Amino acid sequence: MHRIAIIGLGQIGASIGMDLRAKLPDIEIIGHDIEPSTAGIARKRGAVDKISYSLPGTVEDASIVFLSVPVTAVKDVMGAIGSSLSPGAIVTDTASTKVDVLAWAGELLPDSVEFVGGHPMAGVETPGVDGAQSGMFENATYAVIPQARSSEAAVKTVVGLVELIGAKHYFMDANEHDGLVAAVSHLPIAVSIALMRSASSSPSWREMAGLAAGSFRDVSRLASGSPAMHHGIFTTNRESVLRWIDQYQNDLTAFRRLIEVGGEPLMDGLEEAFDARDGWLRGKVVETEAAKAFDEIPTAAENIMGTFGGDRLAQLGRRVSKQEQEIESRRERGS
Amino acid sequence: MHRIAIIGLGQIGASIGMDLRAKLPDIEIIGHDIEPSTAGIARKRGAVDKISYSLPGTVEDASIVFLSVPVTAVKDVMGAIGSSLSPGAIVTDTASTKVDVLAWAGELLPDSVEFVGGHPMAGVETPGVDGAQSGMFENATYAVIPQARSSEAAVKTVVGLVELIGAKHYFMDANEHDGLVAAVSHLPIAVSIALMRSASSSPSWREMAGLAAGSFRDVSRLASGSPAMHHGIFTTNRESVLRWIDQYQNDLTAFRRLIEVGGEPLMDGLEEAFDARDGWLRGKVVETEAAKAFDEIPTAAENIMGTFGGDRLAQLGRRVSKQEQEIESRRERGS
Repeated sequence: MHRIAIIGLGQIGASIGMDLRAKLPDIEIIGHDIEPSTAGIARKRGAVDKISYSLPGTVEDASIVFLSVPVTAVKDVMGAIGSSLSPGAIVTDTASTKVDVLAWAGELLPDSVEFVGGHPMAGVETPGVDGAQSGMFENATYAVIPQARSSEAAVKTVVGLVELIGAKHYFMDANEHDGLVAAVSHLPIAVSIALMRSASSSPSWREMAGLAAGSFRDVSRLASGSPAMHHGIFTTNRESVLRWIDQYQNDLTAFRRLIEVGGEPLMDGLEEAFDARDGWLRGKVVETEAAKAFDEIPTAAENIMGTFGGDRLAQLGRRVSKQEQEIESRRERGS
Repeated sequence: MHRIAIIGLGQIGASIGMDLRAKLPDIEIIGHDIEPSTAGIARKRGAVDKISYSLPGTVEDASIVFLSVPVTAVKDVMGAIGSSLSPGAIVTDTASTKVDVLAWAGELLPDSVEFVGGHPMAGVETPGVDGAQSGMFENATYAVIPQARSSEAAVKTVVGLVELIGAKHYFMDANEHDGLVAAVSHLPIAVSIALMRSASSSPSWREMAGLAAGSFRDVSRLASGSPAMHHGIFTTNRESVLRWIDQYQNDLTAFRRLIEVGGEPLMDGLEEAFDARDGWLRGKVVETEAAKAFDEIPTAAENIMGTFGGDRLAQLGRRVSKQEQEIESRRERGS
């Protein structure tokens, strides 16, 4: 029986488990979490078939291994599982940054396995396994970051899994990934946390708290994200995040000036921001690469397994000629 | 027949209309919007029974008048309706700031009517009448800001209406209101808009946009608020907002330093923000005044009308001795 291992059964790991269990009924999913109680909840919620309490034991017979731990834990986990991975196993991760993760994979994983980085751009407010849900990745962008030495088969397997959980893969290299998510994922975290700190450190916070409603709730939401995850993000993507905070401070100062001036310039500034977000919501500016990469509706897992009937999960990632070209051109660009 | 007039049939005005129509079947609701098409949608959606195309005509026979227009339009509307209001009519508003609104009411409304300011702390992302929905104010805090000369009957009527739509009234004075909402409502707008401007003005925005997910969506949400409403907010609450942006910039700079330092101090900072928001969500820090003001479940409108059977909507706002004491003590403090 094929086995997929998921290390880290928080919001993302457990959500992946739920979707894979539903789509791949013939495959055993084994999970591990540093908190046994989390692992227990994940099993009860149907995210894994089986729990393993040892890290090496979790990966021993797995064809595919997901690392869904905070980015700062990825290094330790790789060190702990390296020598227990089956030859030919494909390891992927879901951590928030990629430059360090790919470097650690190069150092700590044996040459007999493959590593392909991943980052699903999805998540909900409730942290941890309680926030896990099936269908979380439906239509989400899922960044796929191969190593320079990644085989086509490994990349296709990971893309196949991404497809299977309803997400859209998006090939990137690690530097590109970390630079872009610094702006759209990590800067919002800093902005949101600073708002929470500003309001809650005011002497009037008790009175304010009673008035704070949806607008405060949304903009401060990321302060409720996992501190361990945020610590990992800010530690492994520090330079890009600091640069973006500086940029943001300049932009906020410029907007402050519009408020001071008022009148037409302020109205223009407000309308620009409204239009920019409207354009984003309508998907006008979204790169079409991801959308174009697959023209077909993903085949149900049963069909895939039946059609290929082979013995490698890699065959999940079946041919899509455009996709092959993409991988080829990435490899040529040395990512 | 009693009549309630709603001027401005955007998200808030139309939502109030929907709730009042459901709760007060024997009262006619007449509405006006500067955009006739908006008024038409509001009537189709059941927010008003009747549309009036003239401002003075809208208020002529109304016992209660809601002004649900952007704060900068409140002054003009007051000027236009002042001489057409019925003696004894109660005028209230839902604008985002209160110091200017109360001053305009003092100048522009005749002495024969009452004005009691209001501000429901609720709203959804979709702007305008399309975002209106019944039940929007369920359990929301609704700031009620009487004038120094407001009669008890008028204040109680407004509180009764607030109750009727499911919200919890919270008595404040105008300065207190504007200072507090600057932090929890208006600062988040500036923070959110600046994020949208920062990301969308980057040369890499097209690529970023494809990766931007829930975190960006939430923190940038307020950039999709009505530019006219935001303009009014920043114009009428400028000084408080500017002060809060300065405070926020200091706090963001301090948080940036924690990212630079990393390690334990960063972890402590992240945990503080997490705990602060957790406490807020759990309502630990919420002033209990609003929660304590009513011990009773609001009586259904039909019962209220039946029980009092009188000819004044004012009787909606029935006695709650604690409430009377609150009003009294407010009046003594000169608010």
